[in-house]
Amino acid sequence: MCAIVGVYGDEDAVKIAYYALFSMQHRGQESTGISSADGKKIRLVKDRGLVTEVFNQDILKRLEGCCAIGHNRYSTAGDDSILDAQPVFARYKLGEISVAHNGNLVNKYEVRNRLINRGAIFQTGMDTENIVHLIAKSQEDKLEARIKDMLKKIEGAYCLAIQSRSKMFVIRDRFGIRPLSLGRLKNGTWIVASETCAFDLVGAEFIRDVRPGEMITFEKGKEPFSEQIFKPDYRPCAFEYIYFARPDSIIDGKNVYDMRLKMGRQLAKEQPADIDLVLPVPDSGVAAARGFADGLGVPFEMGIVRNHYVGRTFIEPTQEIRELKVKLKLSPIRRVIEGKRVAIVDDSLVRGTTSKQIVKMLKDAGATEVHMRIAAPEIKYPCRYGIDTPTKEELISTKYSPSKIAKNMGADSLGFLSIEGLKKSLGDDRRYSLVSFDGDYFAGGSANTPICSSCD
Amino acid sequence: MCAIVGVYGDEDAVKIAYYALFSMQHRGQESTGISSADGKKIRLVKDRGLVTEVFNQDILKRLEGCCAIGHNRYSTAGDDSILDAQPVFARYKLGEISVAHNGNLVNKYEVRNRLINRGAIFQTGMDTENIVHLIAKSQEDKLEARIKDMLKKIEGAYCLAIQSRSKMFVIRDRFGIRPLSLGRLKNGTWIVASETCAFDLVGAEFIRDVRPGEMITFEKGKEPFSEQIFKPDYRPCAFEYIYFARPDSIIDGKNVYDMRLKMGRQLAKEQPADIDLVLPVPDSGVAAARGFADGLGVPFEMGIVRNHYVGRTFIEPTQEIRELKVKLKLSPIRRVIEGKRVAIVDDSLVRGTTSKQIVKMLKDAGATEVHMRIAAPEIKYPCRYGIDTPTKEELISTKYSPSKIAKNMGADSLGFLSIEGLKKSLGDDRRYSLVSFDGDYFAGGSANTPICSSCD
Amino acid sequence: MCAIVGVYGDEDAVKIAYYALFSMQHRGQESTGISSADGKKIRLVKDRGLVTEVFNQDILKRLEGCCAIGHNRYSTAGDDSILDAQPVFARYKLGEISVAHNGNLVNKYEVRNRLINRGAIFQTGMDTENIVHLIAKSQEDKLEARIKDMLKKIEGAYCLAIQSRSKMFVIRDRFGIRPLSLGRLKNGTWIVASETCAFDLVGAEFIRDVRPGEMITFEKGKEPFSEQIFKPDYRPCAFEYIYFARPDSIIDGKNVYDMRLKMGRQLAKEQPADIDLVLPVPDSGVAAARGFADGLGVPFEMGIVRNHYVGRTFIEPTQEIRELKVKLKLSPIRRVIEGKRVAIVDDSLVRGTTSKQIVKMLKDAGATEVHMRIAAPEIKYPCRYGIDTPTKEELISTKYSPSKIAKNMGADSLGFLSIEGLKKSLGDDRRYSLVSFDGDYFAGGSANTPICSSCD
Amino acid sequence: MCAIVGVYGDEDAVKIAYYALFSMQHRGQESTGISSADGKKIRLVKDRGLVTEVFNQDILKRLEGCCAIGHNRYSTAGDDSILDAQPVFARYKLGEISVAHNGNLVNKYEVRNRLINRGAIFQTGMDTENIVHLIAKSQEDKLEARIKDMLKKIEGAYCLAIQSRSKMFVIRDRFGIRPLSLGRLKNGTWIVASETCAFDLVGAEFIRDVRPGEMITFEKGKEPFSEQIFKPDYRPCAFEYIYFARPDSIIDGKNVYDMRLKMGRQLAKEQPADIDLVLPVPDSGVAAARGFADGLGVPFEMGIVRNHYVGRTFIEPTQEIRELKVKLKLSPIRRVIEGKRVAIVDDSLVRGTTSKQIVKMLKDAGATEVHMRIAAPEIKYPCRYGIDTPTKEELISTKYSPSKIAKNMGADSLGFLSIEGLKKSLGDDRRYSLVSFDGDYFAGGSANTPICSSCD
Repeated sequence: MCAIVGVYGDEDAVKIAYYALFSMQHRGQESTGISSADGKKIRLVKDRGLVTEVFNQDILKRLEGCCAIGHNRYSTAGDDSILDAQPVFARYKLGEISVAHNGNLVNKYEVRNRLINRGAIFQTGMDTENIVHLIAKSQEDKLEARIKDMLKKIEGAYCLAIQSRSKMFVIRDRFGIRPLSLGRLKNGTWIVASETCAFDLVGAEFIRDVRPGEMITFEKGKEPFSEQIFKPDYRPCAFEYIYFARPDSIIDGKNVYDMRLKMGRQLAKEQPADIDLVLPVPDSGVAAARGFADGLGVPFEMGIVRNHYVGRTFIEPTQEIRELKVKLKLSPIRRVIEGKRVAIVDDSLVRGTTSKQIVKMLKDAGATEVHMRIAAPEIKYPCRYGIDTPTKEELISTKYSPSKIAKNMGADSLGFLSIEGLKKSLGDDRRYSLVSFDGDYFAGGSANTPICSSCD
Repeated sequence: MCAIVGVYGDEDAVKIAYYALFSMQHRGQESTGISSADGKKIRLVKDRGLVTEVFNQDILKRLEGCCAIGHNRYSTAGDDSILDAQPVFARYKLGEISVAHNGNLVNKYEVRNRLINRGAIFQTGMDTENIVHLIAKSQEDKLEARIKDMLKKIEGAYCLAIQSRSKMFVIRDRFGIRPLSLGRLKNGTWIVASETCAFDLVGAEFIRDVRPGEMITFEKGKEPFSEQIFKPDYRPCAFEYIYFARPDSIIDGKNVYDMRLKMGRQLAKEQPADIDLVLPVPDSGVAAARGFADGLGVPFEMGIVRNHYVGRTFIEPTQEIRELKVKLKLSPIRRVIEGKRVAIVDDSLVRGTTSKQIVKMLKDAGATEVHMRIAAPEIKYPCRYGIDTPTKEELISTKYSPSKIAKNMGADSLGFLSIEGLKKSLGDDRRYSLVSFDGDYFAGGSANTPICSSCD
Repeated sequence: MCAIVGVYGDEDAVKIAYYALFSMQHRGQESTGISSADGKKIRLVKDRGLVTEVFNQDILKRLEGCCAIGHNRYSTAGDDSILDAQPVFARYKLGEISVAHNGNLVNKYEVRNRLINRGAIFQTGMDTENIVHLIAKSQEDKLEARIKDMLKKIEGAYCLAIQSRSKMFVIRDRFGIRPLSLGRLKNGTWIVASETCAFDLVGAEFIRDVRPGEMITFEKGKEPFSEQIFKPDYRPCAFEYIYFARPDSIIDGKNVYDMRLKMGRQLAKEQPADIDLVLPVPDSGVAAARGFADGLGVPFEMGIVRNHYVGRTFIEPTQEIRELKVKLKLSPIRRVIEGKRVAIVDDSLVRGTTSKQIVKMLKDAGATEVHMRIAAPEIKYPCRYGIDTPTKEELISTKYSPSKIAKNMGADSLGFLSIEGLKKSLGDDRRYSLVSFDGDYFAGGSANTPICSSCD
Repeated sequence: MCAIVGVYGDEDAVKIAYYALFSMQHRGQESTGISSADGKKIRLVKDRGLVTEVFNQDILKRLEGCCAIGHNRYSTAGDDSILDAQPVFARYKLGEISVAHNGNLVNKYEVRNRLINRGAIFQTGMDTENIVHLIAKSQEDKLEARIKDMLKKIEGAYCLAIQSRSKMFVIRDRFGIRPLSLGRLKNGTWIVASETCAFDLVGAEFIRDVRPGEMITFEKGKEPFSEQIFKPDYRPCAFEYIYFARPDSIIDGKNVYDMRLKMGRQLAKEQPADIDLVLPVPDSGVAAARGFADGLGVPFEMGIVRNHYVGRTFIEPTQEIRELKVKLKLSPIRRVIEGKRVAIVDDSLVRGTTSKQIVKMLKDAGATEVHMRIAAPEIKYPCRYGIDTPTKEELISTKYSPSKIAKNMGADSLGFLSIEGLKKSLGDDRRYSLVSFDGDYFAGGSANTPICSSCD
């Protein structure tokens, strides 16, 4: 998942990048970084932690220059004894370069092995290092040409922000799998960000989405220069609408909240239930639950409270405090639920462990029936384009039917949105990347492609 | 505001108190503390910060004993160069004592001055120190009698958890202004907490509310002993329902979320509006907005997103980023709002500064009309019973009529719930403390009583 | 032990107090605090940690006013779940007061019990609270008179800095047990500090020692006013010279380093040894070792290196790493020691555990003989005047003769300075407090007086 | 400067590396790191800060395996927005590798440029990345052969610890410029460290120095395998003896303290002074001052006290507090100095700024004459082999004669050890690297070779 930002043209570039990353914190909380360029030198600060933890006034001041790129990294499982944070900085033949990447290269290991066989070293597990290597190994004279060279060699999902000492380049893969938008501040400063919510915070006007297969070059004293590197084959990731993006963001012309409402309404058509009340799993299921309730004409209530003070470290619980992890975060409102037949709506079902506890929580709170509804199709295939789904074996829907899962969860029923229904909700004006649902690995890769350990 | 907890009878008392305080973090985030008693000694740890920041496994282990009392303190303005955290520990004639207090004594300064004139010293600005002094100064032989002596001398709102080396006492003032409930774990351990949400987390069963004017004594090997110290004159604080308590808590038999729904519905009757959409100010206005939408039969949407990553320190914004503080926290979903006549519902209106920015935010997002609705009456009087309202001069409703305020805010209309409407929503089975609305200082004090600098 | 400072007359009072406390960090590392007074209000910041950890630019700025008092607290053993830090602030009949205290009251428990019986509460374990109580309970009209009243009621060792909103008072007990000196900055600002090393850092000129039994009052627009409250009975603590004060400090006219040299020389006369080399235990034994080597005409070498990076937390050692605690701190230089008969000189011998390891370390490093020499007499009695000696049972010299201890340590001999020799070294111009050596509890108290849990 | 360690053969390898780095903290305080190998995988943790700050029990536990290499990095000036910490980890053709390096490559930029021209990227400014690249680019099949290939291409000073998933290699350049020693624990575990003081702490026996030009290979189940890669041309760095190494370390058979004593004695012969007293600049000048005093037969005193509580951040001083930085750290003992003609001995003179303040400090403390003596020759050339000397322009001795410098400092005289005297002190059994003094850049490079921004 992750988020990237690029800002060009303003003395406040680094501050704008900081606020943009702040507004996209939901896309990645493990680590964050910003690099700046002032024409002569690239400076980089990156570390583990939230944007507000890694940066402060002093650090931002040290990052001089009118161009800044930044990155938020999503926390992935696994042994992270080695810090994988972005942007990745390097000195290479043409000088200095810094790269921020959001996505996932499906031919990562082939590329890496080819590079390694030619003598390259990889200091991290990130795709981004592949990209920097490919640029550095290109025989072209100009960075622009080298970037194009590199782009020919990578496959998969990617949005890139690339910075030299004086220029900035942004690129979106030809499928447009991950979102990327272009905006402009009133003073003329350009900003490119994974989500438009960043524009709203920094006061930038949305100009347009970066086109699939497009590269935009930012250079001092010139208008941004757009080039269509690849023929677009538009397949935006449905998951951005399903749960990843912020509800207020607009991706490729469609508002996320609106899409979720529609999925909820479609779900109501496909998987109705004879119930008294619709509850969302907060905060992820709120919009879909609203649409679902709407579709059924049944009351919607915020019947589960979410605790936002949950910190990072916990005290080992007592014998009396069971299922603590979910209970620390979510609390049912008994008075709302008691004696009711409820539907609980979430945005997706992956392993099913949390859902099981929520069903129990609702039954304990007096629900007479609990119907689980998922505003997305069954996830049966690991995604290779940057959504952190577990391996096939861990995906509950690859192993069990909805009715079996419902039984195991203690739910009275379980219903998913159909793939057709999802498409319908999103609109039939374009095809979507639905790889987690239909296993169509259109951008290279397959269910057996090893998932990279990092998000990018 | 603040929260208190008392746990008696379990080796895990301190852990249970910890989790209870965690679940009541919304009642106070400035400082927190727990003291434990093991029959021989009271131990205390308290400091600035959240519950998860102040305590860790090692610290909890050092707090030995089967009885624990704890406190979360609400952040109040003012020069806090001296740390005011609770519980307050003291050695006195009968040994050791620790006191946690939630509420506000209206005769605090009289009591303090009387004590000071008799030679007492006050090391903090907290009411709690008054209480400890009064117990220590009593001529009675037994702690129980001294506590009763003390209770005769204090006026106002209070819930107390008092701990000696081997006993625990909990007291609620005769008006029952602040909430206090009694629960029990399956292993027999007793717990008393400001809100029932604490019981849900630690797996305790709700037994009953502590009665106004009641003192309950916990002693080893005995059942809790209840004594009615004062004749009850039940006047629970309406503000707990309006915005302070957690929606899943049940106070004196009434669920908070439910009350808010009712206020919203009542508000719809009293202050209808010709609108297309109802939006809450998240998270405080959600339940009332639900009720309001329900009452009007108009769609409800979560059209404003709340950012939960807002940290404590901020970088000074750029020229381009205005009204940052509200924008960092709240983001409107343009697609939902654009071209709509919207009502925005909040739980109360104090100074009006945030509301003004929200109105602007909605208009910028394309709302054609913005109608502000407040699910509470106009706040015209400072509360003296522990709600942190500003001085009379800062309360916008003491100076301006709703229509004037609406005009100043740029809203198309502004409507408050009437006092009668509030009463009706809460049920006419009892009288409520409505001091902020009607200025009825029934428990001593007046609008001119100096507000103590501390929360308690 | 601890340190106090008082600064009067300068806008930079708080900064000067900060630097003074920094220079006296060796007298106490557990906690530190500064309170300031600006004529209207006293402000206080205190916390666990070193001076450089507790304070920063922002915190110092908040402490406004031209008068500041401060305190460093010595780390004492025991359950410190309750933070005992100084100065102690209180509101009392005449307004606000802040007190910093260095020393130990021998009648602390009598005073406390008397106060407690009269209804006082004690929130900490510190003497200082006694002092504040006694001032608050006095019937006198003026603070000056109340302070004198208080002084009549306390016995033991004390140096006090007392601050009202506009005045400052400093007092030294009639025995002058703990050091206290008066200095002045070039701009006229007055400073009083436990050690003169503070003057050197802040650029103050040493004026004179505060006299035993003297109180000096600082007031705006007036010269400091001196009053002899008690008839002096001068008995300064020999331990200040032996090991507590910094070598560059001058206490009552005698330089600490100089005194240590003399003790070392006297020790050479009393306890000579047939050796090749004298080594100090760094850094405490350096000066005495120099004198000892000088006295014997034997070479002196810094044959043990001290590691100054020792932090606070340690990783549990491996099987291979034994006696780690001493080894982490001290390392012998084999080349210097090997094949030599060495004397190792330290400033005092308390429990003997570290010394035993040092002897072993030297033998392992090839010393053919190790003669331990202590530049102080045998410690046979617990001090009640503020030196943190353990209970009588833990003092090795109350139980064993020097030859027995030497044998147990594996040392070839062990020699102490005689009490007479100590007196001779310090000069016979005055009597010294030698209570740890001779058990002469001249200032009240006895070996059986309970030692207070706190340093003060 | 920096320090490296390698441990092979023990489950506690990481702990032993931790303690070894702890004991060599004086060689570098900017950052530290340890990587471990368990046969299958290399794990790495590195960060800014002291050894005790970066590591804790949990982190050490995560670093599994019987082989560990570690590094302490010296703080160098300059824009370090990009973290340069070691070891450097990489994946390359033969698998995984981790490298720790202490020294400085004089042909660094040539190597880097050659690599960059062939398409390599450099993510840091460290030599170590060059080394990893050269290994990765080698065409050899085995790591051993690749390392040898790499060694042919680098020039300058280096000590290396290289780790694959199952083996460890240590190498010392053919000049033996930086120290490196081999030791063994009682349980058979091998340890290689920059200084022997590490062996003393972890309980390892010193076996021998690693020979100039030697590579030792550690492999499971085999004895360490030694290979002489280059013909030795022994030129150990004199600066290790002069000031960098710990006094208790033994480098190439010579104890550091002992060498310093000899330099001090030789200095006394060459630069005598008619004085009453010899003082060291603590702690760096202690041994040399001892030797100097010895040589002259004049008393030695620790007349300047060093404050070890100096933290990292400082409050901006007041007008009254001048020359604060030196005064915070060093305090003269007036009683020792007053009225005396003193010599103050330090280990070297670089810029002269601190010395100037020390001279003033001593004069202010009453010294009638101050003679500065430096137990090393004049530093006239920047070192290119890893000693952090400033550029030629900043070296005071390249611009001024000793008498001019003395005059400017306010000293009554200034004397340096001669180059011949230094050689004599160190023994004429070998040649030393004296490049800072004589400009003999024997290992490649010249006074004009750009100094790398990093220490290694």
